[in-house]
Amino acid sequence: MQTPLAASRRITIPARCGAAARMSAGQLVRVINTHGQPVVDTWAFAQSDPGEFMSMEHSRGHIGTVFPSTGSVMRTNHRRPILSFIDDTSGGRHDTLIAACDRYRYQLLGCTTPHANCTDNLASALADLGLSAARTPCPLNLFMNIPLDAHGGVTFASPISRAGQWVTLRAEMDLVIVFSACPQDMLPVNGQNCTPTDAHYQILTEQST
Amino acid sequence: MQTPLAASRRITIPARCGAAARMSAGQLVRVINTHGQPVVDTWAFAQSDPGEFMSMEHSRGHIGTVFPSTGSVMRTNHRRPILSFIDDTSGGRHDTLIAACDRYRYQLLGCTTPHANCTDNLASALADLGLSAARTPCPLNLFMNIPLDAHGGVTFASPISRAGQWVTLRAEMDLVIVFSACPQDMLPVNGQNCTPTDAHYQILTEQST
Repeated sequence: MQTPLAASRRITIPARCGAAARMSAGQLVRVINTHGQPVVDTWAFAQSDPGEFMSMEHSRGHIGTVFPSTGSVMRTNHRRPILSFIDDTSGGRHDTLIAACDRYRYQLLGCTTPHANCTDNLASALADLGLSAARTPCPLNLFMNIPLDAHGGVTFASPISRAGQWVTLRAEMDLVIVFSACPQDMLPVNGQNCTPTDAHYQILTEQST
Repeated sequence: MQTPLAASRRITIPARCGAAARMSAGQLVRVINTHGQPVVDTWAFAQSDPGEFMSMEHSRGHIGTVFPSTGSVMRTNHRRPILSFIDDTSGGRHDTLIAACDRYRYQLLGCTTPHANCTDNLASALADLGLSAARTPCPLNLFMNIPLDAHGGVTFASPISRAGQWVTLRAEMDLVIVFSACPQDMLPVNGQNCTPTDAHYQILTEQST
């Protein structure tokens, strides 16, 4: 029997922008790849201490893979469970290897004017909640397709997810979750047409029965 | 014709401990796996700003692999070259995926008393130079053997390097380099006998001809 869920409204993560929300332990968040292509960079910070955050380098050893999937429990830099993968209709390809894009990335790609980027989006989204982070942790890049060959080689490819597919994550502690609908429009990580689009999220709360 | 090199004395990285040194751009450092087994966690910070540091998540995208090897140029979180792999007699297996061990890791393994760890070693070694870091970046784990399967699965294995083998790295900017001879003695990442040992490093300076 499935646990009854109360769902919040769908909240937009605007194309090229960030969004942050507080979650209580046990709440679920469904991240919806509304248009099928955008990568959603995702971070989580402990509400009790923003110096404790979801860490890809700590999680990989505990989950035994570079590709988290349903059942994976992501860890903080204090090795505590923070976010679990509950279900995933998106094809299950997410990335833990690649840094958030940043002003330096776009400068190297030839941009001579400021370009929206996931690193600045993290800072802005936290600031909207009156918070800040001393660093930019390596993000959990939902829907990002970084194929890995047998020799450890990594390449950048388009997402395999389709419009309306999602992944559902559970907060394992009281946390702040941050998303950025990746603004990358110079490489096809957000699809071959290099057009960043909105994504959405929805907080789901288990109902006691 | 090889460039003449002036070598400093060999400096010990004591078993279970850290060590830090300043390097000028162009200097080389040879990290010697003296006894063949220990993992040497390695970090580099820009001398001009310790908030800029060698970043595994930024480097992997630029070098196109999770396994750096001769010719790989590691990047900072500002995407500037910081440390290059010049030569490597150790079998070429180093890790960029796994966090430094820390007090939390040993607590989860059952330690009820304090255990030396690479995260605290980084802080102590920086403090010896009057420095501190606001965070513990994911280390470059020299000689650490984390086999990766075709599906992204990671396992912990013993190093493949043998006694006296080394890797030589070049500073691409003025930097502070930090090493920790990993204190892990509860899992065989430092060899099947789980006995941490010394390692050594040596600064080499190219001579103008």
